Amino acid sequence: MKFYDCKTAPSPRRVRMFIAEKGLDIETVQIDLMSGEQFSDTYSAINPDQVVPALQLDSGSCLTEALAICEYLEAEHPDPSLFGRNSVERGKAVMWNCKAEQQGLWAVAEAFRNSVPGLKDRALPGPDPYPQIPELAERGRARYLQFARRLNQQLASNEFLAGDYFSIADITALVTVDFAKRLKLPGPAEASNLDRWHASVSSRPSARA
Amino acid sequence: MKFYDCKTAPSPRRVRMFIAEKGLDIETVQIDLMSGEQFSDTYSAINPDQVVPALQLDSGSCLTEALAICEYLEAEHPDPSLFGRNSVERGKAVMWNCKAEQQGLWAVAEAFRNSVPGLKDRALPGPDPYPQIPELAERGRARYLQFARRLNQQLASNEFLAGDYFSIADITALVTVDFAKRLKLPGPAEASNLDRWHASVSSRPSARA
Repeated sequence: MKFYDCKTAPSPRRVRMFIAEKGLDIETVQIDLMSGEQFSDTYSAINPDQVVPALQLDSGSCLTEALAICEYLEAEHPDPSLFGRNSVERGKAVMWNCKAEQQGLWAVAEAFRNSVPGLKDRALPGPDPYPQIPELAERGRARYLQFARRLNQQLASNEFLAGDYFSIADITALVTVDFAKRLKLPGPAEASNLDRWHASVSSRPSARA
Repeated sequence: MKFYDCKTAPSPRRVRMFIAEKGLDIETVQIDLMSGEQFSDTYSAINPDQVVPALQLDSGSCLTEALAICEYLEAEHPDPSLFGRNSVERGKAVMWNCKAEQQGLWAVAEAFRNSVPGLKDRALPGPDPYPQIPELAERGRARYLQFARRLNQQLASNEFLAGDYFSIADITALVTVDFAKRLKLPGPAEASNLDRWHASVSSRPSARA
């Protein structure tokens, strides 16, 4: 099994943290997104979607999409659970993971990919070129602010995003917030619950992954 | 348990089909998106995200996001499995579900929500108003065409999207293709595998849901 990663990119960090929380040791290959290695013939043969993360199984077939890789690893290595401890908790973990992706991570990615000069005509990851849309960068910043406000509200009465248990939703949200911080996107003026959660989740050894 | 639905909308159709495939009988409440019932105080108290689908559990708490509701129902009612029959199949089903969402359903939704006069300033579902971006409608149409080409390619050597088993990925992809057909979005000139799969999946009783 081989994990295709890029140490500086947010999406594969979700899987790195998941692997670290599970205590797994998986051979890892770095793909240099800065030099466009994801578009090379070698990597395209492994993952035609030309994105990281990807997990090549021993059978040779390849799993892509951070959530799918994590679901596979969860099914293979159920303990400690990162998808909740029962059906309801699973539903809530996946719900908050979806929200963190759609309202958070994709919004920050839109702010990033539609404004950085180096990504001209690469406004979306993958093989197809799409031009940048400046309004989408602006909308991404506005959406991140709203997302961070909702996180702060949810964390007022919950230790972790989905309740009293650490889950994949916290991983996705932490990666999102750290990505937004790196881009210096404005967050809410009052964010004491978010700050408390961020300090707590960041202190986990997996957060260094 | 109560399922909040809108009979004419694509996202809740994913859950309707999932419920039908599982043979479950769940009390269903229609929310009239055309008249803006999702923004009413009554529904906002149930789901502050102001979207359907939502599943209110007997405890009173509410699950939103089609995937999260389906994961909960799958954990409660594992047979017949709609997430694959083992870890690898689960990974592949979730991977293709993610692709169908991100490359397909969200693209069609962008084409729709950024072009329909009735959705001015409602380019995204939920409580926050965002103006339409005409380039995003155009990009959505281009992305759907690429997605349909990839579906056709994947279905050349696979009966269903993730392999030889019907899964949640087929549900999401069928809902996407039917939504695109309703909007008359152009598909690929050659789509014989996609057409074969579409006819097969559409003939399942759940597709009438």
